[in-house]
Amino acid sequence: MDSENIQAGHAAEKNTGKRIEVVDYNAEKKRSYSVRSADPERIAALADIPENLVRWVNIDGKCESAVLQNLGKAFRIHPLIIRNISNHTQRAKIEEYQKYLHIVAKMIYYARGRLVVEHVNLILGPRYVITVGETEGDVFDEIRLRLQNKDSYVRAAGPDYLAYLLLDAIVEGYFDVLDVLDQKIDELEEQVMSVTSQDHLHAIRGIKKELLLVNKNIRPLRDVAAIIEKPAASLIQPSTQPYLRDIYNHIVQAIDSTETSRELLSGLTDLHMSNTSYKLNEIMKVLTIISTLFIPLTFIVGVYGMNFRYMPELEWKWGYGITWIVMIVISCCMVCFFKKKKWF
Amino acid sequence: MDSENIQAGHAAEKNTGKRIEVVDYNAEKKRSYSVRSADPERIAALADIPENLVRWVNIDGKCESAVLQNLGKAFRIHPLIIRNISNHTQRAKIEEYQKYLHIVAKMIYYARGRLVVEHVNLILGPRYVITVGETEGDVFDEIRLRLQNKDSYVRAAGPDYLAYLLLDAIVEGYFDVLDVLDQKIDELEEQVMSVTSQDHLHAIRGIKKELLLVNKNIRPLRDVAAIIEKPAASLIQPSTQPYLRDIYNHIVQAIDSTETSRELLSGLTDLHMSNTSYKLNEIMKVLTIISTLFIPLTFIVGVYGMNFRYMPELEWKWGYGITWIVMIVISCCMVCFFKKKKWF
Amino acid sequence: MDSENIQAGHAAEKNTGKRIEVVDYNAEKKRSYSVRSADPERIAALADIPENLVRWVNIDGKCESAVLQNLGKAFRIHPLIIRNISNHTQRAKIEEYQKYLHIVAKMIYYARGRLVVEHVNLILGPRYVITVGETEGDVFDEIRLRLQNKDSYVRAAGPDYLAYLLLDAIVEGYFDVLDVLDQKIDELEEQVMSVTSQDHLHAIRGIKKELLLVNKNIRPLRDVAAIIEKPAASLIQPSTQPYLRDIYNHIVQAIDSTETSRELLSGLTDLHMSNTSYKLNEIMKVLTIISTLFIPLTFIVGVYGMNFRYMPELEWKWGYGITWIVMIVISCCMVCFFKKKKWF
Amino acid sequence: MDSENIQAGHAAEKNTGKRIEVVDYNAEKKRSYSVRSADPERIAALADIPENLVRWVNIDGKCESAVLQNLGKAFRIHPLIIRNISNHTQRAKIEEYQKYLHIVAKMIYYARGRLVVEHVNLILGPRYVITVGETEGDVFDEIRLRLQNKDSYVRAAGPDYLAYLLLDAIVEGYFDVLDVLDQKIDELEEQVMSVTSQDHLHAIRGIKKELLLVNKNIRPLRDVAAIIEKPAASLIQPSTQPYLRDIYNHIVQAIDSTETSRELLSGLTDLHMSNTSYKLNEIMKVLTIISTLFIPLTFIVGVYGMNFRYMPELEWKWGYGITWIVMIVISCCMVCFFKKKKWF
Amino acid sequence: MDSENIQAGHAAEKNTGKRIEVVDYNAEKKRSYSVRSADPERIAALADIPENLVRWVNIDGKCESAVLQNLGKAFRIHPLIIRNISNHTQRAKIEEYQKYLHIVAKMIYYARGRLVVEHVNLILGPRYVITVGETEGDVFDEIRLRLQNKDSYVRAAGPDYLAYLLLDAIVEGYFDVLDVLDQKIDELEEQVMSVTSQDHLHAIRGIKKELLLVNKNIRPLRDVAAIIEKPAASLIQPSTQPYLRDIYNHIVQAIDSTETSRELLSGLTDLHMSNTSYKLNEIMKVLTIISTLFIPLTFIVGVYGMNFRYMPELEWKWGYGITWIVMIVISCCMVCFFKKKKWF
Repeated sequence: MDSENIQAGHAAEKNTGKRIEVVDYNAEKKRSYSVRSADPERIAALADIPENLVRWVNIDGKCESAVLQNLGKAFRIHPLIIRNISNHTQRAKIEEYQKYLHIVAKMIYYARGRLVVEHVNLILGPRYVITVGETEGDVFDEIRLRLQNKDSYVRAAGPDYLAYLLLDAIVEGYFDVLDVLDQKIDELEEQVMSVTSQDHLHAIRGIKKELLLVNKNIRPLRDVAAIIEKPAASLIQPSTQPYLRDIYNHIVQAIDSTETSRELLSGLTDLHMSNTSYKLNEIMKVLTIISTLFIPLTFIVGVYGMNFRYMPELEWKWGYGITWIVMIVISCCMVCFFKKKKWF
Repeated sequence: MDSENIQAGHAAEKNTGKRIEVVDYNAEKKRSYSVRSADPERIAALADIPENLVRWVNIDGKCESAVLQNLGKAFRIHPLIIRNISNHTQRAKIEEYQKYLHIVAKMIYYARGRLVVEHVNLILGPRYVITVGETEGDVFDEIRLRLQNKDSYVRAAGPDYLAYLLLDAIVEGYFDVLDVLDQKIDELEEQVMSVTSQDHLHAIRGIKKELLLVNKNIRPLRDVAAIIEKPAASLIQPSTQPYLRDIYNHIVQAIDSTETSRELLSGLTDLHMSNTSYKLNEIMKVLTIISTLFIPLTFIVGVYGMNFRYMPELEWKWGYGITWIVMIVISCCMVCFFKKKKWF
Repeated sequence: MDSENIQAGHAAEKNTGKRIEVVDYNAEKKRSYSVRSADPERIAALADIPENLVRWVNIDGKCESAVLQNLGKAFRIHPLIIRNISNHTQRAKIEEYQKYLHIVAKMIYYARGRLVVEHVNLILGPRYVITVGETEGDVFDEIRLRLQNKDSYVRAAGPDYLAYLLLDAIVEGYFDVLDVLDQKIDELEEQVMSVTSQDHLHAIRGIKKELLLVNKNIRPLRDVAAIIEKPAASLIQPSTQPYLRDIYNHIVQAIDSTETSRELLSGLTDLHMSNTSYKLNEIMKVLTIISTLFIPLTFIVGVYGMNFRYMPELEWKWGYGITWIVMIVISCCMVCFFKKKKWF
Repeated sequence: MDSENIQAGHAAEKNTGKRIEVVDYNAEKKRSYSVRSADPERIAALADIPENLVRWVNIDGKCESAVLQNLGKAFRIHPLIIRNISNHTQRAKIEEYQKYLHIVAKMIYYARGRLVVEHVNLILGPRYVITVGETEGDVFDEIRLRLQNKDSYVRAAGPDYLAYLLLDAIVEGYFDVLDVLDQKIDELEEQVMSVTSQDHLHAIRGIKKELLLVNKNIRPLRDVAAIIEKPAASLIQPSTQPYLRDIYNHIVQAIDSTETSRELLSGLTDLHMSNTSYKLNEIMKVLTIISTLFIPLTFIVGVYGMNFRYMPELEWKWGYGITWIVMIVISCCMVCFFKKKKWF
Repeated sequence: MDSENIQAGHAAEKNTGKRIEVVDYNAEKKRSYSVRSADPERIAALADIPENLVRWVNIDGKCESAVLQNLGKAFRIHPLIIRNISNHTQRAKIEEYQKYLHIVAKMIYYARGRLVVEHVNLILGPRYVITVGETEGDVFDEIRLRLQNKDSYVRAAGPDYLAYLLLDAIVEGYFDVLDVLDQKIDELEEQVMSVTSQDHLHAIRGIKKELLLVNKNIRPLRDVAAIIEKPAASLIQPSTQPYLRDIYNHIVQAIDSTETSRELLSGLTDLHMSNTSYKLNEIMKVLTIISTLFIPLTFIVGVYGMNFRYMPELEWKWGYGITWIVMIVISCCMVCFFKKKKWF
């Protein structure tokens, strides 16, 4: 059976909305193949899962809406879900239906320096998992590899464990993004402390927007906790619950991390503003000190530029020299005074 | 029956408080007509809904209060609701009564550049929906069209689905408004970054007020969640619950969006203030540098303007030239010093 | 019976702690009279309510504490309540006791430009309502009129509806105060935008204190919701519940309104500070520009005030004229430079 | 029996950790005496309460820990409580144990201008109350007096009412402190508005620290509400519940009050900063106006100090006078211009 | 048996991932020994706990992962826990599993002036406690000593009490850190008030980051409350519950303390900024006053430096002297004026 894995590899390459990737597995065997999405009958047959097998159906979100509708009918998924799958402005969420669980998660990563948010739908049924992603999710490749390994736990476990693995792969990605953001903040902090530039404010604003975006897309996933606590959720086996709890912990950790980052970021604005105003004020202070030093001297030379007929000093032989000495003494006194006051 | 739709179109035009628009429908047939609001008996008869039909009664909120009272009596609606319908300062809310559900929602849209908030009442009973709007709600026109289509799901579903459609149309409108607000914030951000003007503060305050208004009118609708969770609400069929959950998600998304916008907006105030103070300070710095450059020079020329009898420099042939050279050297040194310190 | 209403009118006038106003009513008849508060036996008899009647007992809070104690004993009201009635620093609250409901509400209104908070106690029992106000509450006059009208709903309803009416009258008063506050904020906003004065800050602080006062006195009434939700509260008939829910909505609306006002107010502080600093900076900028324009010119005239023997320019015939031209050119260049930089 | 009260008075004086004060009472009789704390057997006997009596045991917290341990063993109190009693950094709290209730409250008052926080432990058992205070709590003297009065309600009520009285005495003390703080804020506000001094900031910070301290020690007592709502708490008789509810209301009121004070206080910082910067800016403005007035004049006199050979104005007879007139006109124009612009 | 304690002391020294420290105890006897971590069979045998004994297994977290996996298998611990043990980025948490309780706590302390966060795992089973720390936790040495003491309560109590002791030792460490932080803030406050230096901002930011780190690692432990309240948690004996409640109180106290510290710290930023700007402004004010004093004088001497032919004052004998007197008078007037206005 494992010989079919090569075919699966091919399928992964071609699968740009035209083919549906299917993986059937249980502890003993595994078969991966692809179905042409233009073939409604074969799609309808997908809901017919051979006994003792778990089926993972992975569709490219860019496929035609008819494909999704056929799939929805086959698996008896609520038409609203099918309609919403292609609506990428949907909020991340976890919703329970009677026979399946609908998860909308956002895959977040940096691509060419820009933050990209991808819409991933995941439907977990009694014996199947359907995933609909925006692009060919290479994040899931590791899970495909694990499924090939006969000894891996996922082969023995049910579809709920597969759903956990998929969700976990997405959540792990959040931490990569948060690490990049933390690093950006650290770098910016160093820059703010060394250079003063109005560009820092724009950089801060840019990071803040990214943080808001990440936070907004992670936060709704906290609802995963609600599903663990409801023992009635027969879709989740007790053995999988610790794993979901682990994901919940990761999500809370990620949210905490965004909060901490935001707090640090807002402190950075204050730091920048304080630094900027401090440095500007320092410059003004030095300039004003220079002016203040010369103004009394200018007054003195002005005095002896007066044209009064009777100004005895003007006639003195050492008048000019004494004036210079007086001016130097005054300057020194002022400099000492300023230094003593620690003005520079 | 469908031939009567033309009449309904007419009714919609004339219906400025004088006629009540009525639509009766089920999967097979649909009839839309209008009733003169001045005729109490015909209003009383409206509560008499033929079996297997769903009735949608749409009244203009500007009609006389007697009309509403008659209608209230006919449908046994609590007099308090009837009294509150014309009170446009009422908060948005969703309230359960034993036999019906009362929803007050606010339609929000931009008309001629100003944000308009309209008061819409919706009463969902076992087999009827009553809507009371402020103006002839063209937002509902799309729903009228859907009702004409025999194959549309609404024809087969109950009044709860119709109520969902009406509420959904209102909620969709929120996103249009939020998009406009987001765009306004983006535009303002660009302006704040390029030009410094005290007008920006007023613009920010204007947008903030609009955001507060939107937030205030959307927030109470979150209570829709409470109604989904109560299984006893026999008015809502299980098949309609996913739709209400969808509306709930949209409302939460809209509220989140206003929060994000507010945060961005408040950051904009800081950005504006920082920019303004930065630019003003920069100007002051340049001006002060100019002054500071000339003050020592003015002192020097002052020195040689003194009238001491014995000033050897004055007698030198190159005294004047040397003074100029000294002054130029001093200026250059100061400019270099300022440049080295990165003061300009 | 209605002939006694005149007497009631008299009673209302004289009733400054010396007389207790009593109104007995049901759908058919109504009797209003007053009891001398100095007569303990008649007070004790007040608890003896004729069958099928609802009794409203209204006491002036300034009466002697013995009167309240007698009344408390007669109606078997907990001594703590009686003790607290005259304690005007009590918080607004709604508390359930086994046989009655104790409501402390604060009547808030403007009197001679100052915000006045009045303490009102309301005890709702199985067949009676006792109100204790600080002053002769003219807010309740409208309710007295309604009770005279045989056809009004209150005559047919129980004491819980009367309590609703009284509470509603108090809550309505909040909106009048909030409207005044909103108007004050609007007026202040206009002033802040046109004039800069340090007085604005004090005005903002004044309004903020009023808002805090209003908010503090309204907020505890939110607990009214808790009473609606407890179905065991046999004192509240199901038919009165929608009315209480309406009051709850009003209270929440009033609280929301204070929150919005506070947010607008705090924005106003920023606006004021920004405007003040902006205008001051503008003045400084203009002054500095004037200084900066003259400083180079002063340097030039200083140059030709030097007394060097060999200064060729001084001998030129057009030296003086050329100097003027140079100075004018320099000034024009500087003005152009400043204008180009948009410095004024 | 009442003759023993004199002895109790003596005991109160000497009781600095060496004697344990005991009061036994019921509706008919009351006995107060003291036990030497060094006598373990007598302490052990304290737990043996004669039938129908309530026992109040009051120990000075500065006694040796062995005393507390003996007492704890006698009354079967959890060793953790005994250990914690002398730990004054313990948080205020209310904890239920199976057979008793442990309350840690903080007595807060001003002593010699400084805020003092005292640690009070209160253990309420089925028929006893144990209090352990830091100092000889004169706050409890009033309660001792009440216990002497045969007709006071406390004599007839159980130990829960005594506990209420003790807790109430502590909570009442909070309001005295809050009143002092409010007064301090009001005084500071007046000062901030009249004088600008950097000391205000330190004063604000001092009050803020006191507020934080008060808030921190009051807040945990809110848990008193949890105990009222649990009907299983057999230690609290239904008749005492309204009293506890009253305490809860007081605590909430005190917390609210600290919140309001903090908000006013933080507004005060803004007011101070704004005032300080405003006044400094005003001074700078006036100074700059003076400079700006003289700079053009200095330029003019500089012009006529030039030594050009051909300067026609210098030869004019009225040159000097005209120059003065021109300078005065220019000054007047500038002053008018500044006045028109409302710059001073 | 106690003779083996010496061996335990040795084990503690060598135990750097190569040996597992084991302590078996009950009220009568205690045995401590170490097991080579490279021996899987002996590890497997560890789960075989002799009846009536409590076993504490302490492993160094730096051991090979195989050791942990063997241990996990022996004690039937969920593989996810074993996997997470070496993941030091895990959040602090308390999680209940069916047969054991998994606690991740963070040991926080200062080492060489830097804040160190250590990851500690604690698994509490029916008759065992497993601890996995990052370093050889000397914090636990005191507990080892207590276990040697036959009379200590821990010997008689179950593993839940041992877990309490371990957790308590960690929580106590938090207060040491918080005390250091409080002291740092106090020192910084004094410095901010006396000296103005831009370094303060960096110091504030440093402390803030430490506070955020501490808060983040303490906060999740609040969940300890959830475990106390669930009576089903058979792992926790009722007699241990008060101890856990005590830990909960300590954790809440620690969190409160970080909140208070953060508030004080943020106030410190304001204080620093205000002080800095105040002092800079004061300097500028003095400098400007000096300039302003000399500018009118410079104007006067300029006047008499003019070369008009007809300037009567120049010819006066006392002209020069009078000019000096006038200038001194003007200076004095200005100084008086500034003093009167309290400008310096």
